[in-house]
Amino acid sequence: MTIPYINQLGVVKRHIDRADRAIVEQLGQLGSATVHEAMGRVGLLKPYMRPIYAGSQVSGTAVTVLLHPGDNWMMHVAAEQIQPGDIVVAAITADCTDGYFGDLLATSFMARGARALIIDAGVRDVRILKEMGFPVWSKAISAKGTIKATIGSVNIPVLCAGALVHPGDAVIADDDGVVVVPAADAARVAAIACQREALEEEKRVKLAAGVLGLDMYDMRGALAAAGLKYID
Amino acid sequence: MTIPYINQLGVVKRHIDRADRAIVEQLGQLGSATVHEAMGRVGLLKPYMRPIYAGSQVSGTAVTVLLHPGDNWMMHVAAEQIQPGDIVVAAITADCTDGYFGDLLATSFMARGARALIIDAGVRDVRILKEMGFPVWSKAISAKGTIKATIGSVNIPVLCAGALVHPGDAVIADDDGVVVVPAADAARVAAIACQREALEEEKRVKLAAGVLGLDMYDMRGALAAAGLKYID
Amino acid sequence: MTIPYINQLGVVKRHIDRADRAIVEQLGQLGSATVHEAMGRVGLLKPYMRPIYAGSQVSGTAVTVLLHPGDNWMMHVAAEQIQPGDIVVAAITADCTDGYFGDLLATSFMARGARALIIDAGVRDVRILKEMGFPVWSKAISAKGTIKATIGSVNIPVLCAGALVHPGDAVIADDDGVVVVPAADAARVAAIACQREALEEEKRVKLAAGVLGLDMYDMRGALAAAGLKYID
Amino acid sequence: MTIPYINQLGVVKRHIDRADRAIVEQLGQLGSATVHEAMGRVGLLKPYMRPIYAGSQVSGTAVTVLLHPGDNWMMHVAAEQIQPGDIVVAAITADCTDGYFGDLLATSFMARGARALIIDAGVRDVRILKEMGFPVWSKAISAKGTIKATIGSVNIPVLCAGALVHPGDAVIADDDGVVVVPAADAARVAAIACQREALEEEKRVKLAAGVLGLDMYDMRGALAAAGLKYID
Amino acid sequence: MTIPYINQLGVVKRHIDRADRAIVEQLGQLGSATVHEAMGRVGLLKPYMRPIYAGSQVSGTAVTVLLHPGDNWMMHVAAEQIQPGDIVVAAITADCTDGYFGDLLATSFMARGARALIIDAGVRDVRILKEMGFPVWSKAISAKGTIKATIGSVNIPVLCAGALVHPGDAVIADDDGVVVVPAADAARVAAIACQREALEEEKRVKLAAGVLGLDMYDMRGALAAAGLKYID
Amino acid sequence: MTIPYINQLGVVKRHIDRADRAIVEQLGQLGSATVHEAMGRVGLLKPYMRPIYAGSQVSGTAVTVLLHPGDNWMMHVAAEQIQPGDIVVAAITADCTDGYFGDLLATSFMARGARALIIDAGVRDVRILKEMGFPVWSKAISAKGTIKATIGSVNIPVLCAGALVHPGDAVIADDDGVVVVPAADAARVAAIACQREALEEEKRVKLAAGVLGLDMYDMRGALAAAGLKYID
Repeated sequence: MTIPYINQLGVVKRHIDRADRAIVEQLGQLGSATVHEAMGRVGLLKPYMRPIYAGSQVSGTAVTVLLHPGDNWMMHVAAEQIQPGDIVVAAITADCTDGYFGDLLATSFMARGARALIIDAGVRDVRILKEMGFPVWSKAISAKGTIKATIGSVNIPVLCAGALVHPGDAVIADDDGVVVVPAADAARVAAIACQREALEEEKRVKLAAGVLGLDMYDMRGALAAAGLKYID
Repeated sequence: MTIPYINQLGVVKRHIDRADRAIVEQLGQLGSATVHEAMGRVGLLKPYMRPIYAGSQVSGTAVTVLLHPGDNWMMHVAAEQIQPGDIVVAAITADCTDGYFGDLLATSFMARGARALIIDAGVRDVRILKEMGFPVWSKAISAKGTIKATIGSVNIPVLCAGALVHPGDAVIADDDGVVVVPAADAARVAAIACQREALEEEKRVKLAAGVLGLDMYDMRGALAAAGLKYID
Repeated sequence: MTIPYINQLGVVKRHIDRADRAIVEQLGQLGSATVHEAMGRVGLLKPYMRPIYAGSQVSGTAVTVLLHPGDNWMMHVAAEQIQPGDIVVAAITADCTDGYFGDLLATSFMARGARALIIDAGVRDVRILKEMGFPVWSKAISAKGTIKATIGSVNIPVLCAGALVHPGDAVIADDDGVVVVPAADAARVAAIACQREALEEEKRVKLAAGVLGLDMYDMRGALAAAGLKYID
Repeated sequence: MTIPYINQLGVVKRHIDRADRAIVEQLGQLGSATVHEAMGRVGLLKPYMRPIYAGSQVSGTAVTVLLHPGDNWMMHVAAEQIQPGDIVVAAITADCTDGYFGDLLATSFMARGARALIIDAGVRDVRILKEMGFPVWSKAISAKGTIKATIGSVNIPVLCAGALVHPGDAVIADDDGVVVVPAADAARVAAIACQREALEEEKRVKLAAGVLGLDMYDMRGALAAAGLKYID
Repeated sequence: MTIPYINQLGVVKRHIDRADRAIVEQLGQLGSATVHEAMGRVGLLKPYMRPIYAGSQVSGTAVTVLLHPGDNWMMHVAAEQIQPGDIVVAAITADCTDGYFGDLLATSFMARGARALIIDAGVRDVRILKEMGFPVWSKAISAKGTIKATIGSVNIPVLCAGALVHPGDAVIADDDGVVVVPAADAARVAAIACQREALEEEKRVKLAAGVLGLDMYDMRGALAAAGLKYID
Repeated sequence: MTIPYINQLGVVKRHIDRADRAIVEQLGQLGSATVHEAMGRVGLLKPYMRPIYAGSQVSGTAVTVLLHPGDNWMMHVAAEQIQPGDIVVAAITADCTDGYFGDLLATSFMARGARALIIDAGVRDVRILKEMGFPVWSKAISAKGTIKATIGSVNIPVLCAGALVHPGDAVIADDDGVVVVPAADAARVAAIACQREALEEEKRVKLAAGVLGLDMYDMRGALAAAGLKYID
């Protein structure tokens, strides 16, 4: 099967299969780094995607939107498809840093139950967004506004900041970045991530007590075998 | 008429026509995004210009300075031309990230009544600048100092971060970026921006109540006409 | 003498000559901008190196580590070489933004007495690192993890963000950036920097009182000689 | 359905459905710009992907390979899966500019019938590759070699330079860039592109004769309606 | 006077004052580097503007066009304003790498007498453009097409790649870059540039004979005065 | 020992130990990629360093020069230190793309016997440089000229494009990039590189005959051990 992009221009998909709510919550508490490891180190958006303010840690199910450069018309179409617990993931058909999203759209998104916006472009009104407590991960901050002239699509698979996102996928975002987990894999990934997390606490205690990773992970033999030499 | 740059190297213009103080204040309260819209979406500096600390919202009249790479001599010449309510807009003749400005120059600028610095290069002493409450929008932060060897100009038209700035222009800067309004257009732009702002409050209430932009802006017909299709 | 990189792959140097502790403290209090000036404007890492959170000001002696792209194995080897007061300086053999370092390694580094990490790549767990109070200067923030497959070296000279760092060098880092002072030059640089600092306070008072740099530094003659013209 | 990346790490798919050979040839003759238009302006790799030498125009069916940063081991695994008429499309799990490919691998690829390489990283031996007549589109040219330590996958869907590529997709590359057409859509896209091409020749003759696009496309009314004003 | 951008949106100026033809020819023969020096080292477009093929050296008078991101509608409007000897200078209201211009528009521009295109965005059909002998300096090469939806302006002052260009200005472009000379200053700049050029030939002969710049320019004294020391 | 930059500002070292001429020739024939491998994959300048025209392959001994941004004064000082067979390696104390070098300096360098210039900044007159046959590897091409105001140093160790270069080191440059070999290691590296080269020819023949790298390098077992799975 191919991702039939070219059949999906100008399309809004109303019914999507969302990842299980409880699993999504659990992934959100684990955080992007741990989930990304549990995924086998895939699924991460490029690191140029940064939070507009520090300290947020959210998870949700993806409502996707494909926009054109300098045109945010479809943001309003996407708003109607939001259900409580969703995170809007916005991709652009070309590189753009314009401010597609501000406090008015945020008010609307929040009223619909959205938890965050992930956008491979710019946003504005960032001081107000922070006051409203609506977190955004974006490529840029820009006062530059957009027009409403060309249609795109909502809830088709999109490529956002180097990652493929399907509607309904689990999205985990915090200060370290944004990771996407396919809905069908969410439970399995959460299980792996939990296991990983459990081990970390134990390790943390040992390391804090001064035990070296060299010994805790039993690395000295492998390092010597690889040819590492100590000199004075 | 052309901008006679080549007649204006090594020149300091002492008398400039500043945008009306009350209008500049009003523009500052409206913020960069609203003013930029009222301008017809022009006049914005490139989004790589960022505040060195979050939360400032200022406006003022431009005192411009043209500097050479790695040389901040003209900053001292510019200081003398500052009047209370001015914002210094510094352009460089080539790309440069050096730290042209620190706490000493900030002390001098504040003593003269400057409200902010906009510089298409780097600054330093940023922790102290924040403590002093002197806001700066810059391309970079860098401890790298500069020399004082080559003259430039003060209060000539300059190209700063992709925007043309004339001395006396209104400058509005906040967390969303920096916008410049020609002095002669300031009153008209402020009027348009105020109108825009008034409408926004009303919209915000509706959107918060769950009304969709699709309905509030009556977009459904236009979207259908453009070919948008809903599927399940 | 050449820097014999090619003899030093896969090497850990255990005994290094560290810059004098008291001098390093003094340099830390002076800050990166002042020290960089005292160095004759060399020794600064490129300005893309930014703190993961604002407000830290640290100094220490360099423990260097050379890593491969996407591989943090040697971080554990470096941990064992840390002594109280050290700052780990991590260079990568190719451009990379992966998250080489998180809260577990930070726990280990802190237990060993490290004061900070300077890394020409990415880090993760940044919210927790901030809570732990472990400052990092890095090129990127990324949830992307690394593997442990290829050996590098510890305590060899490294090129980090455009600067040459030898083990034992003094490292000064704050919101303005990171500067490196060769161990052998630390005392001399500190003396010059102190002198510079002393003069600054005096200047600050004058500038705050409205004295212009033009007069304080007696620049008017030189500017006129260079051809600067005042017009109305 | 989701793209099950996380089930496909370390996998080589031997049998893939290739786009029809004749259609792929036809698309190649039409060129990337025309095909991209026929796709509805999607399917293009980012413009940082450039040919290592000018003047090539090729098309083929994608054999995909997912590599790790600094590691070209899977290139050899991919070589075995090449059939005459294929183009290898190489994606990397993180940003990397290393030289993954040189004259030896090119010799092997050519012996297998490959027509080109598209790689979101670097290549080397570019002078020899040009002499051999093996075209490459890449992000960088770099003498930096790679290791062979970590497995990736062959013939899974990959994200390459901002585009999703499935094994068997039609790939068209020339001096304007690289475009990917899903195998299932190739015939339809070719038909649209041919139609477009036919119209272009007719237009070219008119424009060369001095007819303006304004008249040929009958734009004057629409421009006036949009508010365009002529002044003297 | 300010550049009244906000009064000039959606405007086409039909009559512009072009720099003197003979002077423009002369500037073209002198080349961008010499002219840029004669200008006092201003007027140069940023170095990311590169020729799509090497070896062209052209000059002409500017017809300017302001376009929106991803929209080349105004290119057709600009075509009508071209007179023989003109160079079209295209600016975009936001950063964009789309392919605004291809062989059809080039055919039209050439039929009108245009000598080149300077565009702060992308172009396509570059192989054909080279065959046609129509030189272009651009920021990018991209097969990505554009739409025709939003009006801009023709023959207003524009900011292109960091330089201010007025309609009628002299434009000089070669492998070293693009420089703009205000129409009113063209004669004076040409005179200075010629003088400079005459001196260069003489210097070239001396340098080829082994005379050092140190002696030819009599630099040894100044270098010693600046503190330069020779050691063994 | 540290690299005593801060003692070496404003210094010209007249006597340097150059790598053996015959060895340097041999390294040049092997090319940058092979030499870089023989070095253990270190010593390469960053891949943004590109030849101004394709097809050159040179080697020589480094004469180093440290310049300030926008200032090429020391180029003339460096010229006097050139001996036949040298390559000038120019580093800048801050990022800069100005055109430091054109046909006049090239004439002087060639008269002194220089083989090439490697510069971490811009050059100009590139069409003439190509005609003269003087190869340059640079970060940028720019018509922007420089001043002669501040002294730097000649024949001190410099950091150029991410590599440490000592005067006298062997420099190898071709279309793949630039690699630096410490003078003391040149013979050993050449020996390793020759061995490597000898093996390559044999491999090339096998690969051209259709033998797979998988078999030639006996990789199948290691791949299976690493977990690679073949599916249909």
